[in-house]
Amino acid sequence: MDPSNNHHRRMDSSDVNCNDEETDVENFGDLDDKEDERLWSSMSERNGSMRIPLLRKRTNNTSQIAVIGAKSCPIESLDYDYFKAFLAFAGCNMLFAIIAGALCAYIAPAAAGSGIPEVKAYLNGIDAPSILAPSTFFVKIFGSIFGVSAGFVVGKEGPMVHTGACIANLLGQGGSRKYGLTWNWLRYFKNDRDRRDLITCGAAAGVAAAFRAPVGGVLFALEEAAWRSALLWRTFFTTAMVAIVLRSFIQYCWTGKCGLFGKGGLIMYDVSNEVATYGGYDILAVIVLGVVGGVFGSFYNALVDKVLRIYSIINEKGPSFRVLLVIVISSITTCCAFGLPWLAKCTPCPIESNVKCPTSGEGNYKRFQCPDGHYNDLASLFLNTNDDAIRNLFSTTIIREFQIPSLLIFFVTIYFLGIITYGIAVPAGLFIPVILAGGVYGRIVGRLFQSLSVLDTGLFSLLGAASFLGGTMRMTVSICVILLELTNNLLLLPLVMIVLLISKTVADCFNHGVYDQIVKLKGLPFLEAHAEPYMRHLVAGDAVSGPLVTFSGVEKVETIVHALQSTGHNGFPVIDGPPVSESPELCGLVLRSHLLVLLKAKYFSGERRLSGRDILKKFSPFDFAKPGTGKGLSLDDISITDEEMEMYIDLHPIINASPYTVLETMSLAKAQILFRQLGLRHMCVVPKSQGRPPIVGLLTRHDFMPEHILGLYPQIKSHKH
Amino acid sequence: MDPSNNHHRRMDSSDVNCNDEETDVENFGDLDDKEDERLWSSMSERNGSMRIPLLRKRTNNTSQIAVIGAKSCPIESLDYDYFKAFLAFAGCNMLFAIIAGALCAYIAPAAAGSGIPEVKAYLNGIDAPSILAPSTFFVKIFGSIFGVSAGFVVGKEGPMVHTGACIANLLGQGGSRKYGLTWNWLRYFKNDRDRRDLITCGAAAGVAAAFRAPVGGVLFALEEAAWRSALLWRTFFTTAMVAIVLRSFIQYCWTGKCGLFGKGGLIMYDVSNEVATYGGYDILAVIVLGVVGGVFGSFYNALVDKVLRIYSIINEKGPSFRVLLVIVISSITTCCAFGLPWLAKCTPCPIESNVKCPTSGEGNYKRFQCPDGHYNDLASLFLNTNDDAIRNLFSTTIIREFQIPSLLIFFVTIYFLGIITYGIAVPAGLFIPVILAGGVYGRIVGRLFQSLSVLDTGLFSLLGAASFLGGTMRMTVSICVILLELTNNLLLLPLVMIVLLISKTVADCFNHGVYDQIVKLKGLPFLEAHAEPYMRHLVAGDAVSGPLVTFSGVEKVETIVHALQSTGHNGFPVIDGPPVSESPELCGLVLRSHLLVLLKAKYFSGERRLSGRDILKKFSPFDFAKPGTGKGLSLDDISITDEEMEMYIDLHPIINASPYTVLETMSLAKAQILFRQLGLRHMCVVPKSQGRPPIVGLLTRHDFMPEHILGLYPQIKSHKH
Repeated sequence: MDPSNNHHRRMDSSDVNCNDEETDVENFGDLDDKEDERLWSSMSERNGSMRIPLLRKRTNNTSQIAVIGAKSCPIESLDYDYFKAFLAFAGCNMLFAIIAGALCAYIAPAAAGSGIPEVKAYLNGIDAPSILAPSTFFVKIFGSIFGVSAGFVVGKEGPMVHTGACIANLLGQGGSRKYGLTWNWLRYFKNDRDRRDLITCGAAAGVAAAFRAPVGGVLFALEEAAWRSALLWRTFFTTAMVAIVLRSFIQYCWTGKCGLFGKGGLIMYDVSNEVATYGGYDILAVIVLGVVGGVFGSFYNALVDKVLRIYSIINEKGPSFRVLLVIVISSITTCCAFGLPWLAKCTPCPIESNVKCPTSGEGNYKRFQCPDGHYNDLASLFLNTNDDAIRNLFSTTIIREFQIPSLLIFFVTIYFLGIITYGIAVPAGLFIPVILAGGVYGRIVGRLFQSLSVLDTGLFSLLGAASFLGGTMRMTVSICVILLELTNNLLLLPLVMIVLLISKTVADCFNHGVYDQIVKLKGLPFLEAHAEPYMRHLVAGDAVSGPLVTFSGVEKVETIVHALQSTGHNGFPVIDGPPVSESPELCGLVLRSHLLVLLKAKYFSGERRLSGRDILKKFSPFDFAKPGTGKGLSLDDISITDEEMEMYIDLHPIINASPYTVLETMSLAKAQILFRQLGLRHMCVVPKSQGRPPIVGLLTRHDFMPEHILGLYPQIKSHKH
Repeated sequence: MDPSNNHHRRMDSSDVNCNDEETDVENFGDLDDKEDERLWSSMSERNGSMRIPLLRKRTNNTSQIAVIGAKSCPIESLDYDYFKAFLAFAGCNMLFAIIAGALCAYIAPAAAGSGIPEVKAYLNGIDAPSILAPSTFFVKIFGSIFGVSAGFVVGKEGPMVHTGACIANLLGQGGSRKYGLTWNWLRYFKNDRDRRDLITCGAAAGVAAAFRAPVGGVLFALEEAAWRSALLWRTFFTTAMVAIVLRSFIQYCWTGKCGLFGKGGLIMYDVSNEVATYGGYDILAVIVLGVVGGVFGSFYNALVDKVLRIYSIINEKGPSFRVLLVIVISSITTCCAFGLPWLAKCTPCPIESNVKCPTSGEGNYKRFQCPDGHYNDLASLFLNTNDDAIRNLFSTTIIREFQIPSLLIFFVTIYFLGIITYGIAVPAGLFIPVILAGGVYGRIVGRLFQSLSVLDTGLFSLLGAASFLGGTMRMTVSICVILLELTNNLLLLPLVMIVLLISKTVADCFNHGVYDQIVKLKGLPFLEAHAEPYMRHLVAGDAVSGPLVTFSGVEKVETIVHALQSTGHNGFPVIDGPPVSESPELCGLVLRSHLLVLLKAKYFSGERRLSGRDILKKFSPFDFAKPGTGKGLSLDDISITDEEMEMYIDLHPIINASPYTVLETMSLAKAQILFRQLGLRHMCVVPKSQGRPPIVGLLTRHDFMPEHILGLYPQIKSHKH
């Protein structure tokens, strides 16, 4: 049932080392750190050499893109000609946006969006077309670079997770036979299960690289993948390697050779200098934050859902419309970023001697339209990189830097820009917008409770980010650990845990997590870990639908070819009849791909007889291996003469003789748990009583979908409401 | 099959709040911190008020035990009369040892040892008798307090995990009906699955409380339990609550009201002040550490196994022999602790003015036999609490405090004392001895590499502890996170990950993890997550053995009573015959406990007819609920007359009509994965071909044990070697 019609062939990356690649990705993704080292350096001065950015004497030995991305359009250098400044700013943004949009719209539409829903769906067992294809991989990397550089309210973390999964997929396809680059050991990944394990590790590596959070990566895989205990060790090993490679690169880059890479060291938003002390009012504030995060989060998800539905109408009209949409959103984003700071009041600079204020070019205190000795706090948020804006918000040293009206304006803008940006043809992570918006309202709540609370406002900001993450994404343990690894403040862990629990619980009352919604919107048959309540009142036999196509152990070629042509089934039960066994019995299951290989080899015989297992010796082990995406045989590749159509073929050598079976009277809820926990693709339903055909039907993922079951039994739906 | 013959009835703890209880446990466990606040305070001074111990003005409002435990036998106060000092020291130790040993030997032998193997077995699905009984719970707490106070080389972490599981079990039994304390909501735990989930949460809470590591608790449960995705959220919630309660207690205890509880704040062995910088030689040292840890760890496990086998012979002779063994080991431990420091050379005190040296009573620099102005470094390790010894070893500020000969002596002693102590009748955690021994050789390796390395010796000590933990316990992710939460040094994470990977890999070449060994030694049928390789060549039908006892849907009472008497089976397949269905068909599975309830109610009828589901209305929902340990009905409770024996009973109302089934030709390896992943107790093997009885056999946990299969097929074994 899994469509795999992708025909991209650029998959000769067999010499790619997974972890090196991860680090490259991290490198690319970091190019959007445009400016403002000072804040960061002042924040991390006490941390010793490890975390001090050593990039003052930046040399341009990175790629040209990096240089452009690193320092695009310093506004203040235009001598306060605001219109010219706006033009330059908007032009740069527009150019990058068009490149990103065009890459995405024309080359790989599957690269748009976060990528996490697609990876989640893959790990759930859905092999949707081209989501892990090499073209998607390529566009995801470069599209993400240009998208982030264009100033969109998007993150790079989601795309990095997707990139990790793509790399794993390329590796799992085992190099390229075309260029003679096939390694023998890669044959281990030539089956569904091991390839899925590899891609799980790839996704974990992506998380580990994106957030520099190796344990978070393991937990992300755990929360999202159909879990097997063997995965724990494998993902742990993978993310350990990511951590080591990342650490080596960062250490190497201390000498300032790598442009902006390595900024921030292993801990991206360090707040460990602030000791988290809190009292009763802080707990109250945290509960408020959790509730607010849950409400905002579920509302965010609802709006993203609406916007995606509208966008999908526009996107369907063709690539040029997609690029047009990107241009429109880019214009809106630019106008907000340049226009809204005018609304902010100018703030006098702090009087401490060691702070440069206002800063020109780089720095935390943007002057914008303000007179000398003053700075514009809203400009400091809008006209900064996302990472630095987050660091500003989480910062525990600056208490009153941001005025509440500025924070409110920034929150509303980021909240809605985030919603309208997701869905355009640009690789767009959701983490950064969500952390930004959450961080802002966390800071606002912190300011409101300031008189009562003993907790630092910066830590409130972090808790706000946690609450909004919990409210939108509904992951708990992995977000908790990722935040811990991002901020290195272990003492805050209890509060982060409460806030996540509350925001997730509140938001779950309204709708599903944002990734679940996107998966559902894309029509991917995502199988939940738990069964729907009404499934307890149905049995496995009830969910079986449609005509069952079975083969005999030795079957006529014509029957097989006809079945392959007329159905889209991927698995066919094989039933042995009286010549082979006494009574009809279920012999096993054959897969479409294996049937095609067998047909292609044309070991047909004129009569209905067993050929024996010797026939397998005529195949090499690779013949039945799972092919790379789009590489498999199709029925059109095989030409069979009319004479051959009348001949017989023995299916026994390729039968999976141990298919998972359930009795037709098995509770459907239990059958789904079985299907999901073991990560199956087909499940045979066998009759309870004797004297009937030995198989009642075949259950696939689609048969467990609520739409399918409620379609078969509309009375359940009417009963439900 | 699960024996549950325990008859302890002290389970009326229905008003126990799980998390408060956890914290109490933590409180008890901490009473062994006898002395030496100064080091800790100097270590944590820069951490602000949160981590500073505020216990200087200790008031004695804790229990008497706490007072005894807190300050037993200050040696220096005896005016250097070493023999008297030894007598006092040995006397105190012996007294505590005898109390702990007697509690354990006479009241609850199941409370001896770590408790983690038992919890692990329970989570795997083995309900061994009395491992979670209230008496075990009681002895585990007090035995652990006295055992640790007696100076044994044992930890309190394992017992705390066991305690957590015991509390969850008490809660899961739903209070006490005897005292009218049954709450309605506790009925949710009256089934196997939910009770196991609850106990998983209890174990997670135990880890969270023992190490003050909430995320570590979740991961521990994940690594040890038969995992269901619903558990993630539940364990996370539990450990979040533990963290919050723990944090509140610690905050409350700032005022010094709680004796020694709260010492160290939320982070027990804080090394976050040391920035982890490392180069190539450090990586080399870390690899060496990993290999050493793997070798030492597997050797440790092998010796523990040998010692446990010898001890089991002694322990079987009776409780008094157990106490005798405790006395012998206590004497050896005391002699080592008091005798070995004489071998150490006296070290001149450091000249820094702010260090008090030598210290009298409490403090890091024990004078022991040394002249004034000198201290004995070995005495500082031996005659200190375990927690403080670990803090000393991990300490990054003291570089040359410990001489290599002293470290070597301490390592050898702790290594072998740890081995001979585990297995005596005292609750004995393995974490602390392993962390101590690992920390010592880590420091030694750090000293050896000192000229080449840039990493701090204290951090080497931490890595040594990680390597030894990996080598003995073979857990990866949970140990990694627990160490992170214990030490709060995120930058060291990559190194900890490498060292764990290497030590586990090396040690796995030699034997199994220490907990697995103990489980196996206890004869508990632990089911591995992976199948043995030879199982791939067997089918499910091959593992079926022994006579299959089946019932008809409406069965004669005598048949049922006879079957219950003559077999120990817990599940019986029910087959409906011609009057009810056309051909014999598998109707489902009945459980022994449900059969007993049905027999007791005596709804018999004179003829073979269906009674209908109305009969269930005559039972209350609680009648079929899983009873507490030892509370279930037994056949002796039911008296059935000869007349009744001839009557019939309709089993349909109590049949589980959706048993999990596999075809007899299913690969045994696949069947095991199914059995384990879904956490089953019974699996029906159904025939492939028709015209045979509708069930071939019933597979239980025991049928998957290698011993059982290799017993059936000795040729596999001979083939294997």
